[in-house]
Amino acid sequence: MSRTVFFVSDQTGVTAETLGHSLMTQFEGQEFRPVTLPFVSSLDKAEEAVRRINRAASQGLRPIVFSTLVQDDLREILMGANALFLDLFSTFVGPLERELDARSTHRAGRAHGMADLAAYTTRIEATNFSLANDDGSGGDYAHADVVLIGVSRVGKTPTCVYMALQYGVFAANYPLTEDDLEAGRLPPRLEPYRAKLFALTIRPERLQQIRNERRPDSRYASRQQVLYELRAAEALFSRYALPWLDTTECSIEEIASRILNTSGIERRLRP
Amino acid sequence: MSRTVFFVSDQTGVTAETLGHSLMTQFEGQEFRPVTLPFVSSLDKAEEAVRRINRAASQGLRPIVFSTLVQDDLREILMGANALFLDLFSTFVGPLERELDARSTHRAGRAHGMADLAAYTTRIEATNFSLANDDGSGGDYAHADVVLIGVSRVGKTPTCVYMALQYGVFAANYPLTEDDLEAGRLPPRLEPYRAKLFALTIRPERLQQIRNERRPDSRYASRQQVLYELRAAEALFSRYALPWLDTTECSIEEIASRILNTSGIERRLRP
Repeated sequence: MSRTVFFVSDQTGVTAETLGHSLMTQFEGQEFRPVTLPFVSSLDKAEEAVRRINRAASQGLRPIVFSTLVQDDLREILMGANALFLDLFSTFVGPLERELDARSTHRAGRAHGMADLAAYTTRIEATNFSLANDDGSGGDYAHADVVLIGVSRVGKTPTCVYMALQYGVFAANYPLTEDDLEAGRLPPRLEPYRAKLFALTIRPERLQQIRNERRPDSRYASRQQVLYELRAAEALFSRYALPWLDTTECSIEEIASRILNTSGIERRLRP
Repeated sequence: MSRTVFFVSDQTGVTAETLGHSLMTQFEGQEFRPVTLPFVSSLDKAEEAVRRINRAASQGLRPIVFSTLVQDDLREILMGANALFLDLFSTFVGPLERELDARSTHRAGRAHGMADLAAYTTRIEATNFSLANDDGSGGDYAHADVVLIGVSRVGKTPTCVYMALQYGVFAANYPLTEDDLEAGRLPPRLEPYRAKLFALTIRPERLQQIRNERRPDSRYASRQQVLYELRAAEALFSRYALPWLDTTECSIEEIASRILNTSGIERRLRP
């Protein structure tokens, strides 16, 4: 018998998913079927959600519901479903009201609003910047907050794009070429921006795995090539005393957060 | 007197920030200073966090701490700080243990791990795909899960990139040109992929604002041009009966989530 885990939100459900997933991974060896129910923002949709939850309950183990619903009336409808209801929102509103000595507005849709045009524009500009200055193209390092460097497939591109979307950071990236590695020097056009450079590296076995997924049995993915590139790149990083990070065990989120945390770059966005 | 709100995590802190921010926006008219303390994963770092919180307490109103710490020993140290401690994690572990009749592992770092190489690769491939097929370039629509179309600055690019990072979806985008709009037809190379098209539109006033931030007082941002483009685009969308979304009030997260929700595209990733 399987157990369905529902993530219910009046918004996208991403917060409920992330926190709920992190809680469920604490229980090893159990299988869960995840279902996200986003935009539950009306009585109709709340009742439809209850029907889906009850259907799952009748076909398997009692479901678990992670809810970030803000409106009391919708939450109460959901609490009528046959499930363990975990309320990620109102559980904390009471203690906050007492601490702040204020009533909360209990109004939905304030979480990810884009009322603030400036913030929205920052996000778009940062994303466009990361695309225009990806993989050595563009080269507008003068306007970058940070320039990631490293060998191919070390995680530069997704990290730049994530930093743009999540933090509004203008992140460029430059892939070290074989010429750069042989010369053991930064390319001249990066020299003026040494203070913005952040280096990424990775363990050879991991890089081999990743490159093999892309081009199986290629020279590019060979142990010899990977070892050569990583050694030469790391020698270059230490020659220039660049801050660096080993991405082997890191998710994209973690790489981005560690770069911000280490380099002291100011984020331009908050959730 | 200001009040500092801390987001404390053994990971990036993004979940604590998002949920905490959503809770704090329920209290209007109050000013908070947000501080994220990520990677609190050792006794030393937990004690350093307590010192920072206590410093903030001595300089302002009693701080609020949103914590997603998983390890009991670290959480207990944080609970000694002079603050309202809101525990987004262990609050829910007890009820889950009872429901599942199982003990949780209480082990940190399981949330955003990239143990799964396949998932990591999917994410990178999807991100690279969105970059390679952005703004009408690339044009590898055969491998796209979805192709967003719309006029310039309607939100296509950041949405594609977000869908790649968050959901592992292969999203391309195509900006409708003046030629397309005049012809009132899809360009021939998009014709075979009509079933993958998803259209974005926006209210004229909003588009004017956004374009004005980019090119103030340009023809591009003029009311006349914006009205013409949007009318022609919407006529084209209805001619082809494309699914569409008005992005005026939407965040990037919301656009992405609504597209998935409406189109039934299968996501390739979960948190």
